[in-house]
Amino acid sequence: MAKKLTSRTEDYSKWYNELVVKADLAENSGVRGCMVIKPYGYAIWEKIQAELDKKFKETGHVNAYFPLLIPKSYFSKEASHVDGFAKECAVVTHYRLKNDPNGKGIIVDEDAKLEEELIVRPTSETIIWHTYRKWVQSYRDLPILVNQWANVVRWEMRTRLFLRTTEFLWQEGHTAHATRQEALTEAQLMCNIYSDFVQDFMAIPVIKGVKSESERFAGALETYCIEALMQDGKALQAGTSHFLGQNFAKAFDVKFQTKEGGLEYVWATSWGVSTRLMGALVMTHSDDNGLVLPPNLAPWQVVIVPIHRTDEQLEEISAKAEGFIKALRAKGVTVKYDDRTTHKPGWKFNEYELKGVPVRIAIGPKDLEKGTVEVARRDTLEKQYMPMEEVETKVPALLEEIQKNLFQRSLDFRDEHITKVDDFETFKEVLETKTGFLSCHWDGTAETENKIKDLTKATIRCIPLDTVEEDGKCILTGNPSKQRVLFAKAY
Amino acid sequence: MAKKLTSRTEDYSKWYNELVVKADLAENSGVRGCMVIKPYGYAIWEKIQAELDKKFKETGHVNAYFPLLIPKSYFSKEASHVDGFAKECAVVTHYRLKNDPNGKGIIVDEDAKLEEELIVRPTSETIIWHTYRKWVQSYRDLPILVNQWANVVRWEMRTRLFLRTTEFLWQEGHTAHATRQEALTEAQLMCNIYSDFVQDFMAIPVIKGVKSESERFAGALETYCIEALMQDGKALQAGTSHFLGQNFAKAFDVKFQTKEGGLEYVWATSWGVSTRLMGALVMTHSDDNGLVLPPNLAPWQVVIVPIHRTDEQLEEISAKAEGFIKALRAKGVTVKYDDRTTHKPGWKFNEYELKGVPVRIAIGPKDLEKGTVEVARRDTLEKQYMPMEEVETKVPALLEEIQKNLFQRSLDFRDEHITKVDDFETFKEVLETKTGFLSCHWDGTAETENKIKDLTKATIRCIPLDTVEEDGKCILTGNPSKQRVLFAKAY
Repeated sequence: MAKKLTSRTEDYSKWYNELVVKADLAENSGVRGCMVIKPYGYAIWEKIQAELDKKFKETGHVNAYFPLLIPKSYFSKEASHVDGFAKECAVVTHYRLKNDPNGKGIIVDEDAKLEEELIVRPTSETIIWHTYRKWVQSYRDLPILVNQWANVVRWEMRTRLFLRTTEFLWQEGHTAHATRQEALTEAQLMCNIYSDFVQDFMAIPVIKGVKSESERFAGALETYCIEALMQDGKALQAGTSHFLGQNFAKAFDVKFQTKEGGLEYVWATSWGVSTRLMGALVMTHSDDNGLVLPPNLAPWQVVIVPIHRTDEQLEEISAKAEGFIKALRAKGVTVKYDDRTTHKPGWKFNEYELKGVPVRIAIGPKDLEKGTVEVARRDTLEKQYMPMEEVETKVPALLEEIQKNLFQRSLDFRDEHITKVDDFETFKEVLETKTGFLSCHWDGTAETENKIKDLTKATIRCIPLDTVEEDGKCILTGNPSKQRVLFAKAY
Repeated sequence: MAKKLTSRTEDYSKWYNELVVKADLAENSGVRGCMVIKPYGYAIWEKIQAELDKKFKETGHVNAYFPLLIPKSYFSKEASHVDGFAKECAVVTHYRLKNDPNGKGIIVDEDAKLEEELIVRPTSETIIWHTYRKWVQSYRDLPILVNQWANVVRWEMRTRLFLRTTEFLWQEGHTAHATRQEALTEAQLMCNIYSDFVQDFMAIPVIKGVKSESERFAGALETYCIEALMQDGKALQAGTSHFLGQNFAKAFDVKFQTKEGGLEYVWATSWGVSTRLMGALVMTHSDDNGLVLPPNLAPWQVVIVPIHRTDEQLEEISAKAEGFIKALRAKGVTVKYDDRTTHKPGWKFNEYELKGVPVRIAIGPKDLEKGTVEVARRDTLEKQYMPMEEVETKVPALLEEIQKNLFQRSLDFRDEHITKVDDFETFKEVLETKTGFLSCHWDGTAETENKIKDLTKATIRCIPLDTVEEDGKCILTGNPSKQRVLFAKAY
């Protein structure tokens, strides 16, 4: 490991950027705003994908693939979609390069200009609803429960690895239903699936809610979301699920014959999570020593480092280790045995700490004598000696404990950072000092929401689903309000 | 099912196009040359991906992700790469749309022109080697064994579903090594992995070989390939693995410090297979009734159709079926039980035949009486009655038999269609009548190869790895030759 990470208190933003690169998760590429996801980072993303994909399939969804390039005209069809979206896009205008007749290199062939420009998909509602028109005639063709794993491009001016990149990876579900209620239920189901996944698998606590009108997805009637809180007290939207009503069906003329013989527009949802989750993962659990990974997401859950002077010692240690490596693997634990002689144990310790491996086991000559190993857990940095014969049972239990502890720790932090506030002065103060979510009354107008945003940079993260009705006065205008909503500064 | 498929003898090309659409594999989209891969087709692709990914990981490879958009200048760096490639590309020139001030719709914002155009990747050697420069300093950083699952775009003028599309899905491996021999071994290893996969898993026989210089990948020193033969006697390149020498390392200045303290350029390979394999799958096994799937790739290996008049009958059949559905699933067989009452059994039979489900089981009231079921295999269309208690053991065995039979059938066909030819008149005749691979002597020059191509449309598919040295005369020029190569018309 080179020099130490910047600490979180010193500069949270710098800490994040350094950590993502040093832990080998991702790095900036030669292409503005586009990242390279490195093997270690991608292995975590693969675990996210596999678990989500399983959950999607268990609930009846299937995968498909739609074109990357979308004709420009498709975007004009759904009015609110094009207004709220789709402006900052990568536009393909030509389809050929040629050798520069005046010198070296290659230039765009002006003779190969497209009649209609193609947009690199920023999201796929338009091309998918264009396609669904062919797929749907009768109620028998419904529901369509399709998901797509894909890359998308949105031309962001200020980018940060994972959190906001010009190209990112995601999944986007696009479903079509015969009734309003069925589509609404689907949108809620997917919000619940996201919430369960992020909490149980990624150990990140979230609040489920709906977006205010101004924060809704362009073209949606309702946007369900899960909101997480990062260690710097800023919120991060971790996933969204949209009830789209009949907007896209109307824009792309997708009707179906009902059981009763009528003709109706189809009801729609769309929902997605992206590589942004990687950013949430880093910012929720990690510390000044590096990444902290929940065991469910760790490419290696356990790393074993032999400590030895001589080759004979290494052989002896390896022989001992082999037994419990096999036993752990048989229990589904991923174990890396790092017996490289090109690096010193101290270097390896730092490396695996930086990379967030949940459990590190060290075995030296003294351990051989005593029949013990040294077990270090990454979340608390605590060490203990463990009899070798207990490794097989105690390490899997420890991994479970770490997974639970990470969630509980983040939950405690999050809950400590939800503050009920009833006047605007306190609002501004809490936002700047304590930070976190501010639970406040709001008069329900976009005007007030915008004013608060202009004055404080805080936005309404969501109207929590479990909100309780109560009479109150809007934090800014004093107008009557029936429920509290959550404000925060956000990523 | 609507009307029957065009038969293969009637119009092979039309048969293929119809089949791909009717079997719900893929369809053309509203975007020129880009396809929509439908859920049934994508489920097959997912099985291809999963098995290949496992094989890659078992041989030490890891996945990563590199940007979709590549700066134009990168393509100029490797001279032979840019000459042989990369001209027919989607070019991104702008990054913003705006509302048309003169009317409806949206237009490209001319103020948002990129300083340097970006190319939608047609393949990723350039961006990856640009990245490897940062990753490689010392021999300790080698080898790099990275694979990427991605979409790529090549602006094809004439497109066909799966076989040649503007956008397609693939995997591309890009490895970096300290020695020439190690890179060469890697390129060969991957060719073997492809060959094993395509033969054992997809039941498609292939010939392993190397490409002639003119058919080599742009920038490669050697291209290993696997070549399959379709039912119309045309060859299809199913996968390639390139030994790139130090070409890309030199172009992107990727050097490493050797163990001995020297400084050397890195050795490289790249290798890939794509959704083109889906086309090979269709054209190798399918018949005039529709798709024929090897059990390894079938989304449903077994479909069970109850045949009943009354609800009571259906209940009875379902109760009976439940037993062996459970038993089959416990053995890892994927079973679909289609008890929909919206469709008749005859319709279902046609549908699953069209979709290539390897085994269909029908159960009617008479079967209940006799304790039997009717089992139909898709490959031979044969039917047999089977005692219910034998389903659990005999159906898995039947699936294995079908997998083997499909491979053997294609192998026999392929072997019958390799013809040794020693004069050019016979060459032309065999090519037009019997078709298939023509095993001939060739004088080793690109000139002769091109002439033969111009005269007959046949190209050298490969120089087989198991070719035997023998003295002979070039089929066209009569010049001396030391080995036979395989010519064919190809997809």
